[in-house]
Amino acid sequence: MSMATGGPWIVGVDIGGTNIVVGLVPVEGGGVAGVRILPTLPERGAMDVVGRAARAVREAVEEVSALEEGRGEVIGMGIGSPGPLDRKTGRVLETPNLGWRNLPLRDLLSRAAGLPATLDNDANCATYGEWWRGAGQGARVLVGLTLGTGIGGGLVLNGELQRGVSDVAGEFGHMTIDSTGRRCKCGNYGCLEAYASGPAIASRALEGIRAGIPTLLVDLVEGRLEEVTAATVYEAAVKGDPFAVEVMAETARFLGVGVANLVNALNPDVVVIAGGVTRSGAYLFEPLEREVRRRAFPSAVAACRIVPAGLGELAGVVGAAAVFKREILGSL
Amino acid sequence: MSMATGGPWIVGVDIGGTNIVVGLVPVEGGGVAGVRILPTLPERGAMDVVGRAARAVREAVEEVSALEEGRGEVIGMGIGSPGPLDRKTGRVLETPNLGWRNLPLRDLLSRAAGLPATLDNDANCATYGEWWRGAGQGARVLVGLTLGTGIGGGLVLNGELQRGVSDVAGEFGHMTIDSTGRRCKCGNYGCLEAYASGPAIASRALEGIRAGIPTLLVDLVEGRLEEVTAATVYEAAVKGDPFAVEVMAETARFLGVGVANLVNALNPDVVVIAGGVTRSGAYLFEPLEREVRRRAFPSAVAACRIVPAGLGELAGVVGAAAVFKREILGSL
Repeated sequence: MSMATGGPWIVGVDIGGTNIVVGLVPVEGGGVAGVRILPTLPERGAMDVVGRAARAVREAVEEVSALEEGRGEVIGMGIGSPGPLDRKTGRVLETPNLGWRNLPLRDLLSRAAGLPATLDNDANCATYGEWWRGAGQGARVLVGLTLGTGIGGGLVLNGELQRGVSDVAGEFGHMTIDSTGRRCKCGNYGCLEAYASGPAIASRALEGIRAGIPTLLVDLVEGRLEEVTAATVYEAAVKGDPFAVEVMAETARFLGVGVANLVNALNPDVVVIAGGVTRSGAYLFEPLEREVRRRAFPSAVAACRIVPAGLGELAGVVGAAAVFKREILGSL
Repeated sequence: MSMATGGPWIVGVDIGGTNIVVGLVPVEGGGVAGVRILPTLPERGAMDVVGRAARAVREAVEEVSALEEGRGEVIGMGIGSPGPLDRKTGRVLETPNLGWRNLPLRDLLSRAAGLPATLDNDANCATYGEWWRGAGQGARVLVGLTLGTGIGGGLVLNGELQRGVSDVAGEFGHMTIDSTGRRCKCGNYGCLEAYASGPAIASRALEGIRAGIPTLLVDLVEGRLEEVTAATVYEAAVKGDPFAVEVMAETARFLGVGVANLVNALNPDVVVIAGGVTRSGAYLFEPLEREVRRRAFPSAVAACRIVPAGLGELAGVVGAAAVFKREILGSL
């Protein structure tokens, strides 16, 4: 995904709780050029984030123009942001992770970067990117799950993103899997996100460490338990640490409940799992598939592949550009 | 729904675990004519069921023809059956409630009744019927839930039934809402159906009676506890019995978890609840809406109406005819 295939281009901007990723996506798909990854630093305020994102966009455009001798044609910009948001007005209604409320992100960034723009939910973008050029290509019914600080989701049916009637569809992270279970940040009890998000994985690991279970994790963070993250758990699991392997298997079982619910409800041919959690590979996918087989209808399980994302951290960028193309040019 | 509006007609056949409902649906929608309701009696075997269903179809056609002076034109027959099934081959793959396996129901009934036929899942048909001529008219995203011996579901997006890639989509009854909870008949733990189906309502009521909670239910069945059903619980609730009201509120809370999950995942404008359970009216819908508000995203909740089915026991008949029309005539 690092090789450019040439313009015309659409800029993709993927704004996350931790990083902003920017890149130029060929209108016909293909390698992303001029990729930039910068920390979001939401504590500096929305205008600062918008200003730095716009600068990264301009730099990316200039870099690619220089390579292409003269300004490569850039026709617009797709933006992905955590939601909920209103696509029509281009406003982010509320983002607990970023602290934004009713922010006209699309128009602010459009003006700052000097490009026409579209706005969509980040997890919708990642799922659409995977459908267009990633692990979900050709899927008739694609379910996407993005595991990070939160758990986002997206649904592509016959090539079209499904957003529901008020742009909320795909909030699979707040599916209740245990109605009397763990409290979720959203206030509810038993959401999938309360079990299988990055912070949830880390806090389940910490509970075990504090209960005295011996694990390589303590060495990996040199005893500084506050530094245990989901990433250190994956690392320990891949190194064969039995406790970390168990934490990942547990994560996979929780995730498997959510995936089974989606398999029964939507009968997809592909479920794409994105996010750092996929770095744990078979430690995640094997118990995940077992749990889905245990819980979902056999004929639905037989029709479905569960795969890691193919575009890695560029899925959101590719998908945001795909949304722009679909909305402004009319088709992908 | 009892007034005929005139042909041409499509026969709708709705085969359930308890009853078979047959009726003639005008091609343009409207009142169902020649309605027949007969017990399914699955213990007599598939061929007996098919034979009696075909006879009911012929009688219904003759009755309507007589009214219309001369044979009213009947262009075909839509069949709804419990699944999972294969629409392409017209086979019912497996139905625990009826004991059928790999039964070529569409062709058997088509030949016996002398009409071209289509086959679809019963809950899909009910949801499509509600979208076409019931409480879901005009919905862009319609979620249907049918509560009976089991819990079935259907999803209509922009006027099209969504069946997924292997005709399994809409199995909302087997959504896990409590991953370590009650055992479901499907073998899984914590399915919505294990809490909110008719038998589940009855068995939760019985647990309370056996624990000594005073209730009108005991009088309603004259002490014969084996006769407590979901219907007696509705009846007692509507009469104000505090324990029955509590059982219905519990049912509503479980159902609310499932509905909230669907609201977050699909962001529908309408959720239609069908089945005898809706007879308990506000005793069901008030706590149900409260639970959905508690668990789903506010902007998704605000966009969604939760309503009882508008076609009653004829939803499946109307929807089966709608499926025939959509598939054979090309549009509704």
